[in-house]
Amino acid sequence: MSKNDITGFPEWSPEECLVEGRILDQIRKTFETFGYTRIETRSVEPISELVRGGETEKEIYVVKRLHDDDGDESSRLGLHFDLTIPFARYAVQNLNTLSFPFKRYQIQKVWRGERPQEGRFREFYQADLDVIGRGQLSLWFDAELPLLLYETLERLPFPKVKICLNNRKIVEGFYRGLGLDNIAEVLRRIDKLDKLGERKVFDLLTEIGVSKEAATKCLEFSKIESHDETFLSSVESFGIKTPLLEEGLSEIRAVWSLLRDIPKEQKSINLRIARGLDYYTGTVYEGFFLEDSKLGAVCSGGRYDHLATLKSGEKLPGVGVSIGLTRILGRLFSQKKLPTVQKTPTQVLISLMNEESRLEALSTAKKLRARGIPTEIFHEPLKLGKQIEYASKKGIPYVWFSEGSKHEVKDIRSGEQKPASIETWQPSSE
Amino acid sequence: MSKNDITGFPEWSPEECLVEGRILDQIRKTFETFGYTRIETRSVEPISELVRGGETEKEIYVVKRLHDDDGDESSRLGLHFDLTIPFARYAVQNLNTLSFPFKRYQIQKVWRGERPQEGRFREFYQADLDVIGRGQLSLWFDAELPLLLYETLERLPFPKVKICLNNRKIVEGFYRGLGLDNIAEVLRRIDKLDKLGERKVFDLLTEIGVSKEAATKCLEFSKIESHDETFLSSVESFGIKTPLLEEGLSEIRAVWSLLRDIPKEQKSINLRIARGLDYYTGTVYEGFFLEDSKLGAVCSGGRYDHLATLKSGEKLPGVGVSIGLTRILGRLFSQKKLPTVQKTPTQVLISLMNEESRLEALSTAKKLRARGIPTEIFHEPLKLGKQIEYASKKGIPYVWFSEGSKHEVKDIRSGEQKPASIETWQPSSE
Repeated sequence: MSKNDITGFPEWSPEECLVEGRILDQIRKTFETFGYTRIETRSVEPISELVRGGETEKEIYVVKRLHDDDGDESSRLGLHFDLTIPFARYAVQNLNTLSFPFKRYQIQKVWRGERPQEGRFREFYQADLDVIGRGQLSLWFDAELPLLLYETLERLPFPKVKICLNNRKIVEGFYRGLGLDNIAEVLRRIDKLDKLGERKVFDLLTEIGVSKEAATKCLEFSKIESHDETFLSSVESFGIKTPLLEEGLSEIRAVWSLLRDIPKEQKSINLRIARGLDYYTGTVYEGFFLEDSKLGAVCSGGRYDHLATLKSGEKLPGVGVSIGLTRILGRLFSQKKLPTVQKTPTQVLISLMNEESRLEALSTAKKLRARGIPTEIFHEPLKLGKQIEYASKKGIPYVWFSEGSKHEVKDIRSGEQKPASIETWQPSSE
Repeated sequence: MSKNDITGFPEWSPEECLVEGRILDQIRKTFETFGYTRIETRSVEPISELVRGGETEKEIYVVKRLHDDDGDESSRLGLHFDLTIPFARYAVQNLNTLSFPFKRYQIQKVWRGERPQEGRFREFYQADLDVIGRGQLSLWFDAELPLLLYETLERLPFPKVKICLNNRKIVEGFYRGLGLDNIAEVLRRIDKLDKLGERKVFDLLTEIGVSKEAATKCLEFSKIESHDETFLSSVESFGIKTPLLEEGLSEIRAVWSLLRDIPKEQKSINLRIARGLDYYTGTVYEGFFLEDSKLGAVCSGGRYDHLATLKSGEKLPGVGVSIGLTRILGRLFSQKKLPTVQKTPTQVLISLMNEESRLEALSTAKKLRARGIPTEIFHEPLKLGKQIEYASKKGIPYVWFSEGSKHEVKDIRSGEQKPASIETWQPSSE
């Protein structure tokens, strides 16, 4: 990370930025091979919409012109804190020109005024995938998203991920079977299990009126995790049956059966996955690095059937996942798990013998660039040692020398220098 | 443009977003082949720094958490309005880990609370290139930037651009030779020539105490434009000679002599180019579309020798250019000058015969995607007509049919259907 005097607003070093750029390219590419199309929305939304979307008011960044007065409440603007709310709004506003189901990806910065701490930032990239349907949305997409998520993360230089699934209907059906009715409250507390531990969550549950017996059962239920369909017998062992629970089980089995391309050890059904946000209604996901579960979820999402509703009452149900890119990079950079070798994309530096040779150097550079080779021309005819030192400091692997029509290239890692042709020379990938 | 209820914060349709994405890819690629490396800075800066950078206070967007009090003046934050000020700050803060000359590109959104009007947005993308040196910076970079700018714009599906050069030293030297001393004031007024016209600018000049004679000369001088070195005799005809003027002329000749790769009709020396911002000290640039000069500058920049200064007094001189990407796209989309054909990157839609064939479809899709072909699977086994209609609406050119190991592909533009192999089939680029 670079030096920067505003806490929570991270900036990477050039080496890190280069890696981040390559990763963004790769993510976009994978998203697009699945037919998800690029969307960007404005950075601001009315604060009233943001609050409705479930963010606590105190974490919202208000935006206004320096000398504007506040205006009325409904027109006040805040920076978006996720990309789901803006996307649902975009879909509603452009209903008649969009084709449904509408599959999009959206990679943008979001802002949350959280207390800055390790791994929590106030400004960060999210890479989101969502599908929104009109009126209805096939359960198939609940399976496609973890498949695409797996594919995306596998192609990146990241540790292996494990994608965990649950379904809100299972959990809510179970809680109702226990006689509970403040479901959202219970879910929010169960969602804190990883952070607070069992005992504390037990207390939090009994504090809101859940009986000790029910709280124990909620905690036991949340321990069910399975890499195959054996979770069904674990659920049955509780002896609770409600229509909603049955519906959830049927959905999760259908989704699970389509995830064959994800290796067994990288997926699970995990009934602890609750997700804090209120708007999820069915499948929910969280992904973790197998070797670094302490980092918490690196991606998450779920099905939201009621987030967007038209004036006619028609629903636009959706399902989506989000990759917490900045969070992941922050961790991997600080653990030195992502190789950061070069400070520049440049592959070859054309050395400059004297001022007169500059037009010749320009012509050589032009030809190499036309073949896709990132090329710099050294800016002044300094001593060759100085020019090689510049390349070395920036991690540029090759230096090019010309004398008339004779060209040579030095690999400054090995020190080897060889004749080279402008038309055919290639940097080695090593 | 998409529908959106907040003026000045544009959102594109999916078709337009797809085009914007391709253009961003191409810009990054060209920037990198010249060895400029990717940097992103935080979106916020202390308001005190933004104001110092020359933005008028009323155009700055203040950012704060909903219930935070204001804090002291120095810690108040605003959204950045350009990428030059943040980059200079980044270079100073990371002085010891950066290698100079430091060449970077930065493509991010910026925010300006201007009165929204045609072609003016409050949130927009800028694509910036800058080089910063330590202590000094070779004049060579003043030439490299227009060369790279030209190369970048030529590779995009944009109208032909004309890049105009001037040098602040020429203008300032000339004004001093006329006996004027409020140079910044004069420059800001001359900068408005395109917007306000000669008569109005004449009045503005005399209002700040410039004599009628001097104002006339300033206006005459600003008319000098040349596609070759004949501008020198035009300058000499005014009979004014100052050391600063001579220095500027010598710099612009050196820069001009390196721009041979830009065709004659796409470059000029134009002494009207003033640039509004105070921090420019030498070369200044503006670029225009040859066939649409009414749009105003589509890119601009210049040399700034004093923007960043270390505590030791050492300067970090820089030179940079910025492409007003959103502005350009807004114009070209509204004039239908950028083809927007597809609503998705998908090249082929795999049709779904029945629920049982889904795993087979998944396997086909996986193989096509592995070969880099963006592929969607239709989500439900509806009637084939419905599936083809979906492809047609989204502009997906091909639909894939499978029966056992037999595969066929229909080109839905021509209606032609042919046998196809998963291993070798390619969408035609037509």
